[in-house]
Amino acid sequence: MTDRNPTPGRIQKAPENFLSPEKMEQARRARRSFMGKALAMGAGASAATVAGAARADDPAIVKLPAHTTGLGQPVAARGYGSPSQWERNLQRRESPGLTRVSAASVSFAPLQGMFGIITPNGLHFERHHQGWWDIDPSQHRLMINGLVKEARVFTMDELMRLPQVSRIHFIECGANTGMEWGNVAVPTVQYTHGMLSCCEYTGVLLSTLLDMCGADTKKGRYVLAEGADGSSMTRTIPMANALDDVMIAWAMNGEMLRPENGYPLRLVVPGIQGVSWVKYLRRLEVGDKPYDAKDEVLHYVDLMPDGTHRQYTSLQEVKSVITTPSGGQVLLDKGYYNVTGLAWSGRGRIKRVDVSVDGGRNWRTARLENPVLPKALTRFNVDWVWDGSPAVLQSRAIDETGHVQPRLNQLRAVRGTRSIYHNNGIQSWKVAESGEVFNVQLN
Amino acid sequence: MTDRNPTPGRIQKAPENFLSPEKMEQARRARRSFMGKALAMGAGASAATVAGAARADDPAIVKLPAHTTGLGQPVAARGYGSPSQWERNLQRRESPGLTRVSAASVSFAPLQGMFGIITPNGLHFERHHQGWWDIDPSQHRLMINGLVKEARVFTMDELMRLPQVSRIHFIECGANTGMEWGNVAVPTVQYTHGMLSCCEYTGVLLSTLLDMCGADTKKGRYVLAEGADGSSMTRTIPMANALDDVMIAWAMNGEMLRPENGYPLRLVVPGIQGVSWVKYLRRLEVGDKPYDAKDEVLHYVDLMPDGTHRQYTSLQEVKSVITTPSGGQVLLDKGYYNVTGLAWSGRGRIKRVDVSVDGGRNWRTARLENPVLPKALTRFNVDWVWDGSPAVLQSRAIDETGHVQPRLNQLRAVRGTRSIYHNNGIQSWKVAESGEVFNVQLN
Repeated sequence: MTDRNPTPGRIQKAPENFLSPEKMEQARRARRSFMGKALAMGAGASAATVAGAARADDPAIVKLPAHTTGLGQPVAARGYGSPSQWERNLQRRESPGLTRVSAASVSFAPLQGMFGIITPNGLHFERHHQGWWDIDPSQHRLMINGLVKEARVFTMDELMRLPQVSRIHFIECGANTGMEWGNVAVPTVQYTHGMLSCCEYTGVLLSTLLDMCGADTKKGRYVLAEGADGSSMTRTIPMANALDDVMIAWAMNGEMLRPENGYPLRLVVPGIQGVSWVKYLRRLEVGDKPYDAKDEVLHYVDLMPDGTHRQYTSLQEVKSVITTPSGGQVLLDKGYYNVTGLAWSGRGRIKRVDVSVDGGRNWRTARLENPVLPKALTRFNVDWVWDGSPAVLQSRAIDETGHVQPRLNQLRAVRGTRSIYHNNGIQSWKVAESGEVFNVQLN
Repeated sequence: MTDRNPTPGRIQKAPENFLSPEKMEQARRARRSFMGKALAMGAGASAATVAGAARADDPAIVKLPAHTTGLGQPVAARGYGSPSQWERNLQRRESPGLTRVSAASVSFAPLQGMFGIITPNGLHFERHHQGWWDIDPSQHRLMINGLVKEARVFTMDELMRLPQVSRIHFIECGANTGMEWGNVAVPTVQYTHGMLSCCEYTGVLLSTLLDMCGADTKKGRYVLAEGADGSSMTRTIPMANALDDVMIAWAMNGEMLRPENGYPLRLVVPGIQGVSWVKYLRRLEVGDKPYDAKDEVLHYVDLMPDGTHRQYTSLQEVKSVITTPSGGQVLLDKGYYNVTGLAWSGRGRIKRVDVSVDGGRNWRTARLENPVLPKALTRFNVDWVWDGSPAVLQSRAIDETGHVQPRLNQLRAVRGTRSIYHNNGIQSWKVAESGEVFNVQLN
């Protein structure tokens, strides 16, 4: 559960600067001579000035680089393309040892170097129960059966002709931030919170399909969703969700689903933990009681202090995390920083995010970036001038239903320390005098 | 300016089905025997039923496929990943012959096979004036000079520490749909409207930088933006825009800009034609008059019927287009279709989109998908039951300022037929009795 990638980064790329001690000192020296003195910008952007930005006569800008004098590469030369060669370091990463088989494992999204609310498909976290497949869509079918007037089987072509919707939603694994229940302070936000992504999905509402099949939505209080991969992943979806905003999606972020995200068809269950977003979706069955599938009985349950298990706790409660500065990053100077992070709630829209830089004694309200959408990530930003002394950064989200993100110890008081799933506690990042940022468990 | 890619597609993938006549007949036959009869769904989704969807006893679903019985691929096996092998056909494409040098050319986004409003970075259209570069961000600088109290040079690191915003905006080349001014009916929506994309950008507002440099925003009525590539692309930005919503962006859709989109720094000028979104941005100069740069004097001007040129017509007016069904696609059956498309306006939010299936005699209001954001693409959907007779599909957008998308002939009456730029006329797609869809210029 440690960061496998301590490769020295580059000083100019603040969000992903995993620096070795030598590189840090080198960077500090270079920066001192280059900038003269630190950015001394006020907390309010409108009153801001920078003393000591690089001068126009810096020799680095006098020599004309090749890209200014030569002919560049032609259009379409990169085909579908990929990020810059200078961004190779930023990628989703497996956490070795987390599971026994890498076909049934996790790769985490690198939140520390990401921006806004949209997760590009190439950085979307992965969680497979028996590996991923690239299924031929012409052979794929979706069956709907159970308490319906007429059981049906749909081809992809038939589904893609139906009334479609496009919506932006977050997906979070129920086990996200799971190691923090105990006293394991996972070092970086990629591994504490990286089983989290947010995309624009396009598909048909489940309510449309249930209507077409004449589902009995009174007796049929549940829908079983079943995937086509070897794990036979099945999950029970309450009918209230099914008739509300559950989608059968074929596209994410403008293009067809990626194979690792369930191509060609995935169930999208807004606000509900990722395991219910069944990939390679092949069957939906309407039934009159919960199905108690293996992943509802043995996994994704919460072990309480008295030894009992909470079951069907699927909703992802209000939560937030600061992504920059965060564990593993280094502040190279005193002065102004933009503190940024993500907030979300399975119950609806984010109403407010507060940020503390003193471990929760004082809180300031962050700016929320538009759009603020129900059951979607919301990006927040807040000004901070670091005076060089130790600080503890925290964020606390409040959603439109009034739910407030709890402190970790408030959660532990009720649920103990043996849970894995459903930790929405406040995350604390300690900034040391050296500028290094650590994960600490304060309260 | 023709579609280079008549490769037969697959029947189940309606939006990208470029079918040969043989393949079409083959698909029709297969479909008839497979489905029994066509989808006979009513126009209202809530009252919908399908007669003739595939039966559960279809032999295709009885044999268990490999992905159900075997172990799949491990997490992170694909690294950054790419779309499914079954989606290779869908990519941005150059239009051969459009320009003399492919380093100064265009690749178009495949709108006919895209969904929602977010353009994935791998399908974002390209327009280079002297090719693309992958610039080392540690060497890149942004200078601000001219009518400012103190000229400054910023490193990427310094910029990325500043107050940041994230916003979703469309970008459209001023020459998009340019061939339609005359009587050239370009066959597919990829080539008629594919110089259009929409992403979530993250960066610092230009107003923040101007404030930091003490810009004279009264005498300084304009800002010159200059790129670092060999084309020395420079564009004049009015101060009103500069102080409003213009951004210096380093990220799109959650990750750093792609090299072909201006990595590491791009000017984002919401609502304004793409040429002003200067890539590889290296300098901003505050001045007291427009700069009359080469791309403002010789290009991106509108040739009027009297022989004069309109200059500095930079705003992208209200516009929309149906992306499915669209030119080059084939409707394989009568019955229900979801008609979908995009609408946008450089003046603000889309208020309404109307759709006609009879060449503009009657109009119905389409559903707008959330979010509906200012100066961003808006996705619309509307139900349609095709009775098998010829039809002409059109969409007409209205923005929140009251501007209405004009008919092509209304534009021509004022501006003649010799323009290249700034065509926001209504697009007409004719559905023939055969199901084939053609670009026609009706009115």
